[in-house]
Amino acid sequence: MATATPSPTAADPAERFARSAAVTEAGSWLRTAEVPGWMAERHASHRFVVRRIPFAALTGWSFDPGSGNLGHDSGRFFTVEGLQVSVGSGPFPHWQQPIIKQPEVGILGILAKEFDGVLHFLMQAKMEPGNRNLLQLSPTVQATRSNYTKVHRGADVPYLDHFLRPAPGSVVADVLQSEHGSWFFRKSNRNMIVETRDEVPVAEDFCWLTLGQIGRLLRRDNVVNMDARSVLASVPTGAPASGAPCCDTDLLSWITAERSRHTVSAERIPLDAVAGWRRGPHTIERADGRYFRVVAVAVEAGSREVAGWSQPLIEPCAPGVTAFLTRRIGGIPHVLVHARVEGGFLDTVELGPTVQCVPGNHAPLPPGDRPPFLDTVLTAGPGRIRYEAVHSEEGGRFLNAESRYLLVEVADDVPEVLPPGYRWVTPGMLGALVRHGHYLNVQARSLLSLLTTGAAVLQD
Amino acid sequence: MATATPSPTAADPAERFARSAAVTEAGSWLRTAEVPGWMAERHASHRFVVRRIPFAALTGWSFDPGSGNLGHDSGRFFTVEGLQVSVGSGPFPHWQQPIIKQPEVGILGILAKEFDGVLHFLMQAKMEPGNRNLLQLSPTVQATRSNYTKVHRGADVPYLDHFLRPAPGSVVADVLQSEHGSWFFRKSNRNMIVETRDEVPVAEDFCWLTLGQIGRLLRRDNVVNMDARSVLASVPTGAPASGAPCCDTDLLSWITAERSRHTVSAERIPLDAVAGWRRGPHTIERADGRYFRVVAVAVEAGSREVAGWSQPLIEPCAPGVTAFLTRRIGGIPHVLVHARVEGGFLDTVELGPTVQCVPGNHAPLPPGDRPPFLDTVLTAGPGRIRYEAVHSEEGGRFLNAESRYLLVEVADDVPEVLPPGYRWVTPGMLGALVRHGHYLNVQARSLLSLLTTGAAVLQD
Repeated sequence: MATATPSPTAADPAERFARSAAVTEAGSWLRTAEVPGWMAERHASHRFVVRRIPFAALTGWSFDPGSGNLGHDSGRFFTVEGLQVSVGSGPFPHWQQPIIKQPEVGILGILAKEFDGVLHFLMQAKMEPGNRNLLQLSPTVQATRSNYTKVHRGADVPYLDHFLRPAPGSVVADVLQSEHGSWFFRKSNRNMIVETRDEVPVAEDFCWLTLGQIGRLLRRDNVVNMDARSVLASVPTGAPASGAPCCDTDLLSWITAERSRHTVSAERIPLDAVAGWRRGPHTIERADGRYFRVVAVAVEAGSREVAGWSQPLIEPCAPGVTAFLTRRIGGIPHVLVHARVEGGFLDTVELGPTVQCVPGNHAPLPPGDRPPFLDTVLTAGPGRIRYEAVHSEEGGRFLNAESRYLLVEVADDVPEVLPPGYRWVTPGMLGALVRHGHYLNVQARSLLSLLTTGAAVLQD
Repeated sequence: MATATPSPTAADPAERFARSAAVTEAGSWLRTAEVPGWMAERHASHRFVVRRIPFAALTGWSFDPGSGNLGHDSGRFFTVEGLQVSVGSGPFPHWQQPIIKQPEVGILGILAKEFDGVLHFLMQAKMEPGNRNLLQLSPTVQATRSNYTKVHRGADVPYLDHFLRPAPGSVVADVLQSEHGSWFFRKSNRNMIVETRDEVPVAEDFCWLTLGQIGRLLRRDNVVNMDARSVLASVPTGAPASGAPCCDTDLLSWITAERSRHTVSAERIPLDAVAGWRRGPHTIERADGRYFRVVAVAVEAGSREVAGWSQPLIEPCAPGVTAFLTRRIGGIPHVLVHARVEGGFLDTVELGPTVQCVPGNHAPLPPGDRPPFLDTVLTAGPGRIRYEAVHSEEGGRFLNAESRYLLVEVADDVPEVLPPGYRWVTPGMLGALVRHGHYLNVQARSLLSLLTTGAAVLQD
């Protein structure tokens, strides 16, 4: 079907990735138009059933009698605990909430290989119980430490060795990045891209796609999963457009100042002690129905590492909006980042999208307390929208956690003086920052992946 | 005495700093040989007295009746609490210890300015109660948030505005860096270098020195304090010697792998609950006399922001050894870093020196459990020692915390296969990493400052 090029060229890595992003309709394997059919076929060939169950029907999970924390009898996987957060100021200076604690570092790895002179990426059609459509395109490897140390007695994780023992010089990107700071307590995953020259057998449920093909698929709703988007943000894109050194000192200084001006206290508390939340047989939720609820599901699946299991999930109460405003400054496209505090972040602040919220949660607030730029995004005319699609957050922990991802172009209707915590940056600067952990949150990385794959284009 | 150059040249910043490092004997102000006399004169002009006192004689500090935590009645400054650490493996897989918790971010800032075409740095002769000789050369600004928000009702911090509101384009370095992970719980300080073109009045206790002058003073014991050394590690030194992009992907990948392979749990516990430590009237210490003790001092001083105060300090039980092994690889000098776990680190692992320990703490261990390379450093002949001096750790929190800092050249007597967690890197790579927080621990930054200032030279 395709022959491997014997040795990747020594060209600039960014150039090789750009070449792959330019190949959009057909790689050396499937045509892009064939991928949805292939995914539907993979879906049909397995038996996937996800049912909501009461907490009492969870197998191996129970509420700790002392704290009320929800955990697995093995002590592994994750626990749902309580968190008490103080951020000092803003419309919500203090709050308590349930949170997922999962101290182990997982691996999200995409294997790359040249075919016919073009880099391809080995993507997996993978079921996750929380995805609206269950099966999405995922990284080659998406493994918790529990996965690959076999705590749940499953099968081997295919291709894992490429990431645990990469050949010298084969690593393209390798960085610990945060997961959702509103739902996870200090959770990091290892985001890796590794290029191989070896023969790679293509297992069932896997296919090689170019970056451009993945970009085209990112224009559809709910096809490319969050873990894949997070990793694809690390695709090298060359020097920042400004020609400045790879990490702009003024930008680093601004981030340092933002981290210094916030004093965040986040202390774990017993789940039973979380004020304003109540536990019923099927849910842990707030009386006002806002934010999210903790629920439980039973999963039956034929293609996963184990045949069936049950687990808790976090289910947001409404869909979110995740958007970068974009504009040209000095002829160069910029996006507007927001230095966000999230209770579960390791280090106070990470850069997030211009807008990242569930609009319904903010409906009761006075206009001055509504998230900045939310109304700009919600009222943007079609001519302003450079990208729009619905994507899911991590389907292994979050149920139906959908968000509308947008890139919205603005002209002169944005004030020259930005609110505190907002700054225009180039995508190239974000590409330099994402080589290091804990600068870009997972939503900002998702939006950045739209640019690294060519799903969206800011240059005219 | 000297005239300000009206406008710094637009030359490469690294080149301008290198030019300052080359000026070693006399800047536009004091001659290097005059600095010790000037410091002695500053010392003599103030009344500095530090006395050990029992905890009961502390003013404004008390032990919490519930937890035994030692804190200030205002709730500010810092507390001494307990910490329980699990690192999974090694000779000490679990332990408990007292630790300082100080969640606020301080500013360590050095102001730079060109005189006669050469960058000078505004250094302060500052008293800290824990320094062996009390007064050392310190950054222009060394302020906790309590300092500059006036919690202790002191005087204004001079020059602070240069760092809180730097002019556009004036920031040379600005990064949140860790403090001692063995004694502080997740403490970060903002390390800044800011260049000004303004007229700057030189206050009593301050003087302008070139980088080369500071380098010469770093060859003396206990002259340049830890905060100054930490900031000076951020001096730009240009691209890594290898000509590689500013942050080597293989090095970043190795650091990510080191962070992923360690699972560290560090939980705060009440000070009264710390096993193996006992509280007496004057000290909190271990029965076996190892590691450190918590003590209290009363300070009388005329030149500090307030006239007198009392406070707890941590006093190590013996002097430490802090050393990089160095060798040439492919003709380029390298130093041997160690990916260290310290209980108080924010993120599991930071890169530290080859050797960082108090040898006495390891005396009872079997030879296989002694710190790697400690004996190589302790037995190195004088011909191998490229640098050696005694420096103090932060004198505001640590009493007589002295360590012998060394750069020890090795040839073929180091094994080709290193123990896990060790790697040869170039100083240029460290210079790229130190632009970001939490890669280099404070001891590694101290050693790096010897190279950025020219105190030690690895090139022949």
